[in-house]
Amino acid sequence: MKMHVTALQKKTLESPWENMEKVTAMLEGRTGPPLDFILLPEIFTCPYDNACFPVYAQEEDGEVCRFLSELSRREGAYLIGGSVPERDGEGRIYNTSYIYDREGKRIGKHRKVHLFDIDVEGGQYFKESDVLSPGDKITVFDTEFGKMGVCICFDIRFPEMFIRMRREGVRAVFVPAAFNMTTGPAHWETLFRARALDQQIFMIGCSPARDEEASYRAYGHSIVTDPWGRVVCQLDHEEGILEADLDLDLTDLVRRQIPLSGTEM
Amino acid sequence: MKMHVTALQKKTLESPWENMEKVTAMLEGRTGPPLDFILLPEIFTCPYDNACFPVYAQEEDGEVCRFLSELSRREGAYLIGGSVPERDGEGRIYNTSYIYDREGKRIGKHRKVHLFDIDVEGGQYFKESDVLSPGDKITVFDTEFGKMGVCICFDIRFPEMFIRMRREGVRAVFVPAAFNMTTGPAHWETLFRARALDQQIFMIGCSPARDEEASYRAYGHSIVTDPWGRVVCQLDHEEGILEADLDLDLTDLVRRQIPLSGTEM
Repeated sequence: MKMHVTALQKKTLESPWENMEKVTAMLEGRTGPPLDFILLPEIFTCPYDNACFPVYAQEEDGEVCRFLSELSRREGAYLIGGSVPERDGEGRIYNTSYIYDREGKRIGKHRKVHLFDIDVEGGQYFKESDVLSPGDKITVFDTEFGKMGVCICFDIRFPEMFIRMRREGVRAVFVPAAFNMTTGPAHWETLFRARALDQQIFMIGCSPARDEEASYRAYGHSIVTDPWGRVVCQLDHEEGILEADLDLDLTDLVRRQIPLSGTEM
Repeated sequence: MKMHVTALQKKTLESPWENMEKVTAMLEGRTGPPLDFILLPEIFTCPYDNACFPVYAQEEDGEVCRFLSELSRREGAYLIGGSVPERDGEGRIYNTSYIYDREGKRIGKHRKVHLFDIDVEGGQYFKESDVLSPGDKITVFDTEFGKMGVCICFDIRFPEMFIRMRREGVRAVFVPAAFNMTTGPAHWETLFRARALDQQIFMIGCSPARDEEASYRAYGHSIVTDPWGRVVCQLDHEEGILEADLDLDLTDLVRRQIPLSGTEM
């Protein structure tokens, strides 16, 4: 059984409105087979900057959610809406990915569990936890292709989340992410290959395109890896659309050839 | 704090006696700094073949164990004695790694937890579980450099073992292993880089050298990877000695720069 995945590696513009227009324009410009899954980048509605998160955070069912719902309905595709700063009713802000079915109905959301706090000497510094609160759940949703998972960026460093998603039966995990120029070249591809290989799943990662003027320079390199640990396709750092037809039978084949499940300690 | 590791990538000969002599000869031929850790390959005393395991299996404290104890005492180094077929008192056989301190005292043993049962179309077939029984524990031992872990070959595919070893405080994991010509080129380096990166530890892997005449052709490529996920050094498939000085302060540095611990779900 084949499923089509599309990742929009777009530059992040200043305001939610510009960014939503940009998403629409990129999809309108696309030619290709019908869409099954659309994946947007992490924090796609405003610059990836602690100063911007409180300014642009919206509650559930704000304008961004209405846009995402309408987009998935219009395209007739599942939509993993990258991530956006979400404000809850109690003053907390999360890094949240909203998930929609082909009819535009919201069927899940993932709040980034592992906040991005790093301080690499001579490299990247960022501390999401100064502004954001962490989620506390893995996120899995049902489709006609089987169960799919979602995690956000730094979450990918935690194999325990993927062990749990695999136990729930996922066959692919969608990852809105924005690695940087320190950890991107060093770790991005290895992590996507490793998580795919360990759990014998497909991994689909979508990054913003790199903006050399931004305070946070994204690595780009939106990527798909397969259950054998191979890179299926990968962009460079420029704006672009990554598309792949994924044969889910490969998941079953690899799991049969190298049985890993059911032998856990 | 620096520690020196040595992995003997030796060809596997027919009998335990020839193989023990070969280990001795390789170490006698070595020149270099004093040894801290010696690592031997998986199943180093007989061919990697289900037909050989019952023939050459020994109980604890058999001749092979006496050899390993004497070797570690003579070299004044910790010894992770690759692995050997171990017979218990009840007719079961395990794939077991014995561990010795610098005085030749046995301080641990690891029985391979995840048996190697694979069947890749057009590639490698093997079914250890036809003959071997699995262990059921992670293995950690103390040294003046901190805690170290041991796992064997197929165990490396299970991140849950490494999560548990990291929780016990390990700073490096030694892996006697014998990947093959199917999974070696596809997965060996990625798995060593991923386990190192995920748990922010050093990984040291020792394979037999490749024997083109053997029924099981080992990939070789004995390897060291570091807590940043880099390959420190790696052999090709020929017989040889891999040596590295590992700066354990890097473990602390990487853990400080990218804190992963303590944020588990």
